[in-house]
Amino acid sequence: MKTEDLLAGLNSHDPRAIGRAISAVENNDDCSAKLLASLNRDAIDNCLVLGITGPPGAGKSTLTSSIIKQLREQQKRVGIIAIDPSSPISGGAILGDRIRMMDHALDPDVVLRSMATRGRLGGLCASAGAAVRIMAAAGCGTILIETVGVGQSEMDIIRLADITMMVLAPGFGDDIQAMKAGLLEVADFLVVNKSDIAGAEALSMDMEHIFAAREEEDGIKRVLQTIASQHRGIIELLQQIDAFADHINISGIKRSRRRKALDAETLDWVSEMLQPDLLTLMQTLPGTNDPRLRAQELIKIMQNTH
Amino acid sequence: MKTEDLLAGLNSHDPRAIGRAISAVENNDDCSAKLLASLNRDAIDNCLVLGITGPPGAGKSTLTSSIIKQLREQQKRVGIIAIDPSSPISGGAILGDRIRMMDHALDPDVVLRSMATRGRLGGLCASAGAAVRIMAAAGCGTILIETVGVGQSEMDIIRLADITMMVLAPGFGDDIQAMKAGLLEVADFLVVNKSDIAGAEALSMDMEHIFAAREEEDGIKRVLQTIASQHRGIIELLQQIDAFADHINISGIKRSRRRKALDAETLDWVSEMLQPDLLTLMQTLPGTNDPRLRAQELIKIMQNTH
Repeated sequence: MKTEDLLAGLNSHDPRAIGRAISAVENNDDCSAKLLASLNRDAIDNCLVLGITGPPGAGKSTLTSSIIKQLREQQKRVGIIAIDPSSPISGGAILGDRIRMMDHALDPDVVLRSMATRGRLGGLCASAGAAVRIMAAAGCGTILIETVGVGQSEMDIIRLADITMMVLAPGFGDDIQAMKAGLLEVADFLVVNKSDIAGAEALSMDMEHIFAAREEEDGIKRVLQTIASQHRGIIELLQQIDAFADHINISGIKRSRRRKALDAETLDWVSEMLQPDLLTLMQTLPGTNDPRLRAQELIKIMQNTH
Repeated sequence: MKTEDLLAGLNSHDPRAIGRAISAVENNDDCSAKLLASLNRDAIDNCLVLGITGPPGAGKSTLTSSIIKQLREQQKRVGIIAIDPSSPISGGAILGDRIRMMDHALDPDVVLRSMATRGRLGGLCASAGAAVRIMAAAGCGTILIETVGVGQSEMDIIRLADITMMVLAPGFGDDIQAMKAGLLEVADFLVVNKSDIAGAEALSMDMEHIFAAREEEDGIKRVLQTIASQHRGIIELLQQIDAFADHINISGIKRSRRRKALDAETLDWVSEMLQPDLLTLMQTLPGTNDPRLRAQELIKIMQNTH
C-alpha cells in the first residue's frame, strides 16, 4: 500500500490503516520513515497517553476494559497498546485478546494493537512509540499502554506514557514491600483494584503513606480503589486523571516527559539499527571470553568500517 | 586496592574481595578490565548458574533461601545475585535483605550481591555477568540469580543462567494463562510453590501439560511442588536439577547457552559503552521530533567522529 493511501486511511480514522501503518514500522518497510515524518504533529502533541502497569493477577485487563468503557461513554476515541509477555511464535496477543473479547470487539472507535516483548531482537520501545504516534494521528485522543510486569523493559515502555497508573490488589504479600520503593519513580496513580476483598483497606493506607506528600501538594488524589469487574470506582479514577492531565499540561511536565520519552525511543532505535551489524560482526571476533573486550573490539570495528 | 590484592582475595574466597571486585566492575574502575581478564576460567566454566524467576508473591525469596540451606547441607559454597526492582536511591536491596535475613547472614560460604534494576543507565546484564564470573572464581560452585518479574530485562538476565526455574503459586488467576505461552521459552523447571494451598494441584496439572513432551524425552521431572516455608520438596527439586545439569553438560546445551549469554552480555556492554556519548550527542541534534531520524543522525555522527 502506498504511503499516501496509508496516510489518507489514518486521516479518515480507518482502523485497518492504523494496523498496517504500525506493521510497516515494525517491519521497517520502505515507506515507514516517510509515514512517520508525515503524521499530524498537533494530534500527537495533544493526545493523552496513559500507562497501566502492575503485577500479574492485579486485574489490569479488566481495569483497562472498564476504563475504555468509561471513555467511550464520553465519546472519546481510544487506542490501546497491549504489551504481551508471551511469544509471537507460541500464540502471543493474549492480553490484547482478553481486552478485545471483553466489550469492545465491534467498536470501530476502539483500536487495539498487541505487541510481544519476547521473540524480538529489541526495539519494543521504538515500536510502541511509533504506534502511539500513528494512533494519535488517526484520531485517538486517549491512548492506553497496558503492560504486565514490574521489569525494566516494561518501565521503559511506560516512560512513553504521559501519566502512569500502577494497579495492585490485596494478596501479594511481602513482594509489595520490595516494589514500594520503586513505585514513586514510575507511578502517578496507585489503583487498589479488587477493593472488595480482604486487605484492600490496609494496602490503600500503606500506599496513601507513600503518596501523601504529592497529594498534599496539588490536591489530586493518587491512591484510588476500584472494583473493575463491577465497573466501580472508574469515574472517580478518570476524574482524578483528568485533573492531573490538566496539571501536567499547564506546568510543562507533560512536555518534559515527552522529551525524555523521545530520548528513550531514540536510544532504542539506535540499538535496533546497530544490532544486525553487531550480531554479524560478533561471529568474526577472535575467541576471547571476556564480553567487555569483545564489546570494545566490536565498537572499534564498527567505527572503522563505515 | 590493587588488582593483585583483589585477585588474591578472590582466590582465598574472601567475601569482601568479591564485593569489592563486583563494585570495581560496576564503577568501571581502572582495574576492572584486568581483573575480569585474570579470573580463573576453569572455575567459571564449571560453575552452575541457576536462575530463579517468577511473579511477585510466588515466594521466590523463601524458595531461594530454602535452596541455599539445602546446598549448604551438601557443603557447597553458594553465590546469590538478587536483582532488585527497587531503586538504589530509595533504599534498594530489599530482595537481598530478605534472603540475607532468613538464615545465612553469618555464613561466610553464602555470598550475596544485590543489584537494582532501576536508577541505572543500563548494563545490568553486563554487571550480573561479571558478578557470576567473580563469584565463580572465588569458589562459588553454584550461583543463584534471583529476579522478580516477568519482564524482558529479567529474561535477559535469566539468559545468563545455565538452568532456569520459574516459581508460581496458586492464585494468580488468568494472568498465568498470559504467561504460559512464554514459559517454555525461558523455564527449564516449573516450581509450584505454596503447594499446600487451594489450587496447587490444578496449577501443577496445567503446567504438566506444557512440559509433558520434554519430560518424556529425557525422564527429568520438570514440574515440581514445594512448600519452601516448610523446606518441603527442596531435596527432590535439587535432585532433578542435578540430573538436568548433567544432561546439559554432556549434550553440549550448557556450552551453547553460555555462548548465547556471552553474546547478550557483549551487546549489553556495547550499549553501556556507547550510551554516554549518545546522550551527549543527543543534546546537539537539530529539533526533529522523529526518533528514527534522530537515531540515524546519531549513528552517522558517532561513526564519523571516531
